[in-house]
Amino acid sequence: MKTVQRIAIQNFLKDCSSHPTAKEIYISITRDRKFENLSMATVYNTLEYMKKKGLVRELAVPNFDHKRYDPDTSPHAHLVCTACGAIQDVMYPLHVGIPEEHRQGFIIHRGEVNFYGICPKCAPDKSGKNADGNK
Amino acid sequence: MKTVQRIAIQNFLKDCSSHPTAKEIYISITRDRKFENLSMATVYNTLEYMKKKGLVRELAVPNFDHKRYDPDTSPHAHLVCTACGAIQDVMYPLHVGIPEEHRQGFIIHRGEVNFYGICPKCAPDKSGKNADGNK
Repeated sequence: MKTVQRIAIQNFLKDCSSHPTAKEIYISITRDRKFENLSMATVYNTLEYMKKKGLVRELAVPNFDHKRYDPDTSPHAHLVCTACGAIQDVMYPLHVGIPEEHRQGFIIHRGEVNFYGICPKCAPDKSGKNADGNK
Repeated sequence: MKTVQRIAIQNFLKDCSSHPTAKEIYISITRDRKFENLSMATVYNTLEYMKKKGLVRELAVPNFDHKRYDPDTSPHAHLVCTACGAIQDVMYPLHVGIPEEHRQGFIIHRGEVNFYGICPKCAPDKSGKNADGNK
């Protein structure tokens, strides 16, 4: 049973264009009555396994406590909303690197670029309201 | 008294070239008997206040649970060790940006570049040992 649940989590992430938290993954999958017995522990264990196998990347967002998971492990930048924590992929190639003498002895495996700002849903329009109609 | 404690935290961070966790700040400051009554709550409250005032930046490191704090809020990249979580500043100018059509409606306030890899302390030398002498 656990294997079936793990496959469901992996398939959910494979088809996922957002960057869900473990809780969001749990809520989405347990909507299907077939998986109503899924536990958060299985979600966490599966995410740990997928991280180790390089099938998912953990994203940490400053000022937000919940880690997000990105099933697209290819190099790409992110747009991060500092108001709601939403994360969008940037599909524009960015090549960042630093010369050897600035690496301070680090062996660098990858670079990551995050742009922090306000997403369209949280940004106030010209009337001073955000997309949800709140001032 | 709380104000004196807050000033001690702010002064500690001002002189700090590392990127300490809240716990590390607490341990360093309570070493001084004058501040042995400092509580973790005061550390957290002071960090929240400093974040709001733009005096410190919270850094989130994937795969590490403890947030780190950077008293240098000027634009700069970071080298992050994926083995021990150490963070070093990169003092090499990097200019990253994305064209308007790739911003997906986000209002961008700042970009952040992190290089993930292995720090010299965690990297094995040619004998296969790391800097602590462990294989």
